[in-house]
Amino acid sequence: MGAMEIYNGNLGPGVLSSLFAMNRATELASANGFGIVSMKNSTHWMRGGTYGWQAAEKGFATICWTNTESCMPAWGTKFECIGNNPFIMALPRESGPLVLDMAMSQYSYGKLQVTRLKNEKLPYPGGFDKEGLLTDDPGAIEETRRLLPTGFWKGSGLALMLDLFSALLSGGLTTAGVDKAGKGNCGRNCQVFIAFDPLKFNAEGFLEQAIQETIEQLKSATPANEGDEILYPGEQSLRKRNENNELGIPVDDGVWANVQGLAKRS
Amino acid sequence: MGAMEIYNGNLGPGVLSSLFAMNRATELASANGFGIVSMKNSTHWMRGGTYGWQAAEKGFATICWTNTESCMPAWGTKFECIGNNPFIMALPRESGPLVLDMAMSQYSYGKLQVTRLKNEKLPYPGGFDKEGLLTDDPGAIEETRRLLPTGFWKGSGLALMLDLFSALLSGGLTTAGVDKAGKGNCGRNCQVFIAFDPLKFNAEGFLEQAIQETIEQLKSATPANEGDEILYPGEQSLRKRNENNELGIPVDDGVWANVQGLAKRS
Repeated sequence: MGAMEIYNGNLGPGVLSSLFAMNRATELASANGFGIVSMKNSTHWMRGGTYGWQAAEKGFATICWTNTESCMPAWGTKFECIGNNPFIMALPRESGPLVLDMAMSQYSYGKLQVTRLKNEKLPYPGGFDKEGLLTDDPGAIEETRRLLPTGFWKGSGLALMLDLFSALLSGGLTTAGVDKAGKGNCGRNCQVFIAFDPLKFNAEGFLEQAIQETIEQLKSATPANEGDEILYPGEQSLRKRNENNELGIPVDDGVWANVQGLAKRS
Repeated sequence: MGAMEIYNGNLGPGVLSSLFAMNRATELASANGFGIVSMKNSTHWMRGGTYGWQAAEKGFATICWTNTESCMPAWGTKFECIGNNPFIMALPRESGPLVLDMAMSQYSYGKLQVTRLKNEKLPYPGGFDKEGLLTDDPGAIEETRRLLPTGFWKGSGLALMLDLFSALLSGGLTTAGVDKAGKGNCGRNCQVFIAFDPLKFNAEGFLEQAIQETIEQLKSATPANEGDEILYPGEQSLRKRNENNELGIPVDDGVWANVQGLAKRS
């Protein structure tokens, strides 16, 4: 379809399919200014931000998202019936990309687990307890699995629309269909990758300047609490990434022991 | 650029420019499967959902958004420094479209005002009071103008990225630029309109079926509170619209008196 291509992932490894799809979207963008790639019958792409980094490091702006199996209660419901459908927007920048990587739940299960293991509370309520009350106790939310959608009804609605768009554009399964397919976490899900070549839109330096003035306005804002640092999307990841590139990737001791155990067994 | 066109709104009426742009996006989609239209130097498009309805009633799926002047504090800041940048996704359906129309603040100033005039509290906290605490008191938020971004840091980051993408794709001004331009509420802002023709993607009935199974899953979910109705995006608007088409559009008596006063004066 000109600057758009539609693929069937055939249940291959989701990470490989997604790297391929994003690469293809950037090739289409090189030729046409922008490119859209959709994929049905994919599997879990792991961290969505990866594909934002992939495009941005090659100089492309991107919007991409995936649908998932049901893993979050819709607003007003008690049990999981919609996906958390991560949505990514990324922009290239000389000193490192801006990457927004947001699932439609306020917190991930990973964040709940880490916070519980530290015996800490969430900074803001992240779900509902057994009594149906909003709580910042991560363990209570893990028990009910009643994750709070980002922005209450808003994240719930956005998740549903992202789901339907990903199915529409790829001819694949909705979250309801993924649930029925029974291929597990993200089995037979759909993804959409949109890439833009900034140099086909504006003179060199336009985007750098737009990002620069936006970050300046953000960084010069009065912090809510004196001394707090105001962050732009992906700033923490950028720092961590630079640090990890220098010092190596930190691994949790327990997880590492598990990996070694699996290696021995196989 | 093939299926994409870029316009200069020249500070003309934002509603007319946006109706034109969305119409053009659907024409491009008719020819190419999808179409993208961006516009710089626009002005306020009023209710963003209008353009979702416009596309969906013609049978097109759409994603569109606008940037604005600074009207919301970024996450972690005290004063307005980013836009609330409404984002719309809409899908056509025989019995009426699905339309998600969400600004990046949890509540609009309109909702705060209406709630305050009724002497009610917001259903969930919507911003910060003078002491910097989250509050559900609409008057206290109107005083500080410290609106809560949708989903705390998430809506704040999404607003910033939508802003930068709208400037990138149209060659127009970011929120920081709109602030400096001094042309008032949304003066010289940017908009992006993406339209898809569902019939170029899948057989007739595919989208109806996808929406049908998704809404069925939603409607059959266990409500958090017994008897509560679970709504899909735009369901309330669809009902209101049908009601208004039959009975006429209700107008607030005070607002109507104001309009009549203005008419007499001119």
